[in-house]
Amino acid sequence: MIIVMNAPVARELERVLDKIRQLGLEPHVVTAAGKTVVTAIGDADRDRCEQFARLAGVERVVLVQAAYKLASREFQAENSVVSVGGVRFGGAVVPVIAGPCAVESYGQFRATALAAKASGAAMLRGGAFKPRTSPYSFQGLEQEGLAIIRTVGQETGLPVVTEVTDPRAVGLVAEHTDMLQIGARNMQNFALLKEVAQAGRPVLLKRGPAAGIEEWLMAAEYLLAGGNTAVVLCERGIRTFETATRNTLDLAAVPLVKHLSHLPVIADPSHGTGNWRLVGPMAKAAVAAGADGLLLEIHPWPEEAMSDGPQSLTPANFRQLMGELSRIAAAVGRTIQHGKGG
Amino acid sequence: MIIVMNAPVARELERVLDKIRQLGLEPHVVTAAGKTVVTAIGDADRDRCEQFARLAGVERVVLVQAAYKLASREFQAENSVVSVGGVRFGGAVVPVIAGPCAVESYGQFRATALAAKASGAAMLRGGAFKPRTSPYSFQGLEQEGLAIIRTVGQETGLPVVTEVTDPRAVGLVAEHTDMLQIGARNMQNFALLKEVAQAGRPVLLKRGPAAGIEEWLMAAEYLLAGGNTAVVLCERGIRTFETATRNTLDLAAVPLVKHLSHLPVIADPSHGTGNWRLVGPMAKAAVAAGADGLLLEIHPWPEEAMSDGPQSLTPANFRQLMGELSRIAAAVGRTIQHGKGG
Amino acid sequence: MIIVMNAPVARELERVLDKIRQLGLEPHVVTAAGKTVVTAIGDADRDRCEQFARLAGVERVVLVQAAYKLASREFQAENSVVSVGGVRFGGAVVPVIAGPCAVESYGQFRATALAAKASGAAMLRGGAFKPRTSPYSFQGLEQEGLAIIRTVGQETGLPVVTEVTDPRAVGLVAEHTDMLQIGARNMQNFALLKEVAQAGRPVLLKRGPAAGIEEWLMAAEYLLAGGNTAVVLCERGIRTFETATRNTLDLAAVPLVKHLSHLPVIADPSHGTGNWRLVGPMAKAAVAAGADGLLLEIHPWPEEAMSDGPQSLTPANFRQLMGELSRIAAAVGRTIQHGKGG
Amino acid sequence: MIIVMNAPVARELERVLDKIRQLGLEPHVVTAAGKTVVTAIGDADRDRCEQFARLAGVERVVLVQAAYKLASREFQAENSVVSVGGVRFGGAVVPVIAGPCAVESYGQFRATALAAKASGAAMLRGGAFKPRTSPYSFQGLEQEGLAIIRTVGQETGLPVVTEVTDPRAVGLVAEHTDMLQIGARNMQNFALLKEVAQAGRPVLLKRGPAAGIEEWLMAAEYLLAGGNTAVVLCERGIRTFETATRNTLDLAAVPLVKHLSHLPVIADPSHGTGNWRLVGPMAKAAVAAGADGLLLEIHPWPEEAMSDGPQSLTPANFRQLMGELSRIAAAVGRTIQHGKGG
Repeated sequence: MIIVMNAPVARELERVLDKIRQLGLEPHVVTAAGKTVVTAIGDADRDRCEQFARLAGVERVVLVQAAYKLASREFQAENSVVSVGGVRFGGAVVPVIAGPCAVESYGQFRATALAAKASGAAMLRGGAFKPRTSPYSFQGLEQEGLAIIRTVGQETGLPVVTEVTDPRAVGLVAEHTDMLQIGARNMQNFALLKEVAQAGRPVLLKRGPAAGIEEWLMAAEYLLAGGNTAVVLCERGIRTFETATRNTLDLAAVPLVKHLSHLPVIADPSHGTGNWRLVGPMAKAAVAAGADGLLLEIHPWPEEAMSDGPQSLTPANFRQLMGELSRIAAAVGRTIQHGKGG
Repeated sequence: MIIVMNAPVARELERVLDKIRQLGLEPHVVTAAGKTVVTAIGDADRDRCEQFARLAGVERVVLVQAAYKLASREFQAENSVVSVGGVRFGGAVVPVIAGPCAVESYGQFRATALAAKASGAAMLRGGAFKPRTSPYSFQGLEQEGLAIIRTVGQETGLPVVTEVTDPRAVGLVAEHTDMLQIGARNMQNFALLKEVAQAGRPVLLKRGPAAGIEEWLMAAEYLLAGGNTAVVLCERGIRTFETATRNTLDLAAVPLVKHLSHLPVIADPSHGTGNWRLVGPMAKAAVAAGADGLLLEIHPWPEEAMSDGPQSLTPANFRQLMGELSRIAAAVGRTIQHGKGG
Repeated sequence: MIIVMNAPVARELERVLDKIRQLGLEPHVVTAAGKTVVTAIGDADRDRCEQFARLAGVERVVLVQAAYKLASREFQAENSVVSVGGVRFGGAVVPVIAGPCAVESYGQFRATALAAKASGAAMLRGGAFKPRTSPYSFQGLEQEGLAIIRTVGQETGLPVVTEVTDPRAVGLVAEHTDMLQIGARNMQNFALLKEVAQAGRPVLLKRGPAAGIEEWLMAAEYLLAGGNTAVVLCERGIRTFETATRNTLDLAAVPLVKHLSHLPVIADPSHGTGNWRLVGPMAKAAVAAGADGLLLEIHPWPEEAMSDGPQSLTPANFRQLMGELSRIAAAVGRTIQHGKGG
Repeated sequence: MIIVMNAPVARELERVLDKIRQLGLEPHVVTAAGKTVVTAIGDADRDRCEQFARLAGVERVVLVQAAYKLASREFQAENSVVSVGGVRFGGAVVPVIAGPCAVESYGQFRATALAAKASGAAMLRGGAFKPRTSPYSFQGLEQEGLAIIRTVGQETGLPVVTEVTDPRAVGLVAEHTDMLQIGARNMQNFALLKEVAQAGRPVLLKRGPAAGIEEWLMAAEYLLAGGNTAVVLCERGIRTFETATRNTLDLAAVPLVKHLSHLPVIADPSHGTGNWRLVGPMAKAAVAAGADGLLLEIHPWPEEAMSDGPQSLTPANFRQLMGELSRIAAAVGRTIQHGKGG
């Protein structure tokens, strides 16, 4: 049960909380945008909902069966639209985020960003802190990378998303970028989720490689319950027995999550396949399936990339793909910005 | 190494076989459409290929690295087009096969078939022999079902595909239908594959729920090596940890298989998701990803279906979807026949 | 609900069946060893059970909640013991079945069999019909292999199990061997299961690589409902993302199946790991976990084996392992026959 | 290539590093216990190794093919023994760590600890910071829990392990406990691994639910390369399609990791199965397979546990199991301390 209160005075809120506790339920309070949202955890039913609806300061009461509460469609029927520096996820326009796996140098990131922008990318991606399987692999340019990201973002005028991997770095990363990415390996890094919830930045929450749909939405719930409602989900493939692709891109998760939740969902066919030849077909498939955006890896010289070269598109591949994507988007009643090429 | 011979005389073929054996390789011979195709298994190299190219009766020699030989793109660069009663898989038109999971009665199958046809379905599907997890579940109408399939196929003028599960029934099923389906559970039922290879009917080969791409193509190779080149592959989802959907539809398999093989590949989003709400989005995604056809379950009264009700579209759902699919097909430069509705 | 009748006369049986149908349930009848067992499928409850208990000819009525009926512990509380030529599975002695993956020649199979027997193997295994991923791989010696199996079985006095892959070959294979194996790929080959159910031989039913516990027990139910109660289950590994081993041996399935079912369960660490170094530790683990037997691949010259060499123990490995296994068996209150060595 | 130097002077170390860089390799230096270990990443060969062997200060040079270097058997042939407050992992004695999933109160943890000790547990476990799928679930007693852990550890004289989930809490947790646990969800939380590597405490590194063997050893490499050699690995089950158990305990990982690495490996059959009925059989199986220890959840009142009740043993279950385990350990030439009961 979720009780939405409109700028309640302290006494009104206290009365709601008391009543929740009297029923043996546990209240959880979030305040955002003038609303106070109280989630009551435990067995609720329609009768109990009605009791709360009559209390002073209560705007509406929603009975939510799902384990995730604030993330559920039951709580909010209409789609959430998440805005990142003017780029909107969840509306009729389908934004494409493009960029290299890792920021390797100012020159490399700038060249990629210009090519991305020329072909219609709405946002940039690029990693400064790279979670790598081996301690001996390139770990990212770290602070130097963040500075490059901010500079190139300002030069191109495109918002930028980058991954944050350490709760201690959340503030720093938030200062340099427009959107914080929680990577797949950190989807259930709850210390990080709690810190990011407080960071005042929109969040791109990737699905973990072994995470079920419900666990993914519960990770989003950590962000929402922590006071951050600007959450965009990203399907990037799950781990299965199939080794012919890097991951198995579970595209059915896109329409399923949109049925269960009001949050926007985008797809990452680069990590989802690990093979640049498959990125184009799966990007088109994602838009056809209803994805609210795409996250694509491009690199000016993939064969020299310090990470993820095999799955990176060249600027020329990307330009062609954007044209194809705009036709698919039109076929499902949406639009993708299609640049004039780089 | 594959040696293609053009109507060789016995002495010419014998000489090729002898030479293969002298090299310590093992020959495998298939004859179809006037060509004799000899596959030599073992370590081959370019030098050896050239030795064979000069022998009498030899048309061309192809060095194939993949474990599957006749199914590989290395052997045949251009797409195979498989024709089933005039319906072509692998060309510019994307055929949709529709029908109920199981044939339950003449009335049910006929109503479904008419609705399917009215909305643009190119072929019918319907099961007479149903592989069921429980021995106590409905096992299909069996011979009675085959008779219904043939009758309704003739009445509607649409070719029909049905599953065969027993090598002893291959002849009987082949008499009643236009295309034989090897179900997912039987993808590695080699006794069945060998029998179906001889049946003189095109084959729809579903991917097994635990089968890797290479194993799937090796199953196709059983059919090709057995003399049947009219093979259509069908992605229908693999088994993963995710239980929110019945299977995980591995759509990346579509472009990957088309890269590795010349055989047409279609998708089955009904079994691939197990949830009718997801069938439409994933059908569109499949066409966007390059699928050469679709296999869809429809039922006039899904809530009363004897099997697979939850994943079946109603005729009205199907009619709407066909319109949407035709737009997606156009966006990727193909066409889907879009009926006037039922 | 399962109704056990003791040699009922026709009228008594008919009355039970009528009453089942009147309740809207569907009866399924098996007769074995003088008992007639009627399984009623559908919603039953305790009241209904009691109604049947009073009918003439009815010995007992059991309410079974599980989807598998005759295979469940609810139906039969005590362990089933399956005897194969005097070797008993499910009792205090833990039989070890050993032999090569494939019968390659009389000499190879005889040498393996003598070594196996000398070290305490209770039964022999060896494949004559081999299901192989590639049509170009060795497919087994087929009928010649069966003859070798029978000869060597007689010479050593050990019962033999071999795989049957084709319903048309069930009679032939049953004539030559003491136990029929349903391989992992055929666990849901229902045409084969139905034929094997009639063959009058004990059955070794391997778990499919993508089969859940319940699906495995449902496959056993096909055999039991077909009139064959001599079923031994064999855990041989499932397919997971982990590729460091050939399969993931799911040993927890052993105690879980023994909790859910009365059927004996053995383990196959050879296929379960695909690596001879791991076979010994996992064989010991299986006995410690409560397995009712082991299936082990041994080969006199593993490096020359026509299939599965990497997972085969040498006779010397096997002899040593049998000594170690006998100590583990003793530690869990059971015994393993430990030979004097080969 | 790994170059072990015995207390080198600065000039000697510099010369080695220069030479590594001249070869186009990248050096990584760790110093521990008077030794300086330089790992050179990149293509090495035997010739190059010999060049380094002759340099001043170099004790030995080891060529390691595996991706993990310091963790590999190639680098260190003999088993590592990790001591935690006198409890040794990797030797002939097999320590059992027992305790509740979460510390719920002083009374609960003390009662559990006394029962565990009475039955022969060598160490205690108990969570103060709980990573929970839902933000609304009990998240642990946090600092209060740490204080309870320290108190009860001192009262019983048993070393204690607890999970740390946040790099900012590593120092605090290290002050209160004898061993730090990296939980399964955090196996690739590299910020946490790097911090824990510096903490001066032995580490229990659980395998991630979607982590392959090599990725797990690479996570250990983060700890070793960070200067912490006291690493114990813990197999706790992987995520597969099978839902009849909470995870699939991959026991073959135990002998496989011991073949590939010198680090001790223990097993957690509580999380590995999620079902107390299966914990005993799988604990015995783990010891039979060669596990260097066990991690078991026990709770005085499992039905009231705030988390993981269904997989927790009662003190009485545990007492009985310890007796059974001591017999299995003896059968594989090891010992388990077997208490007089609680």
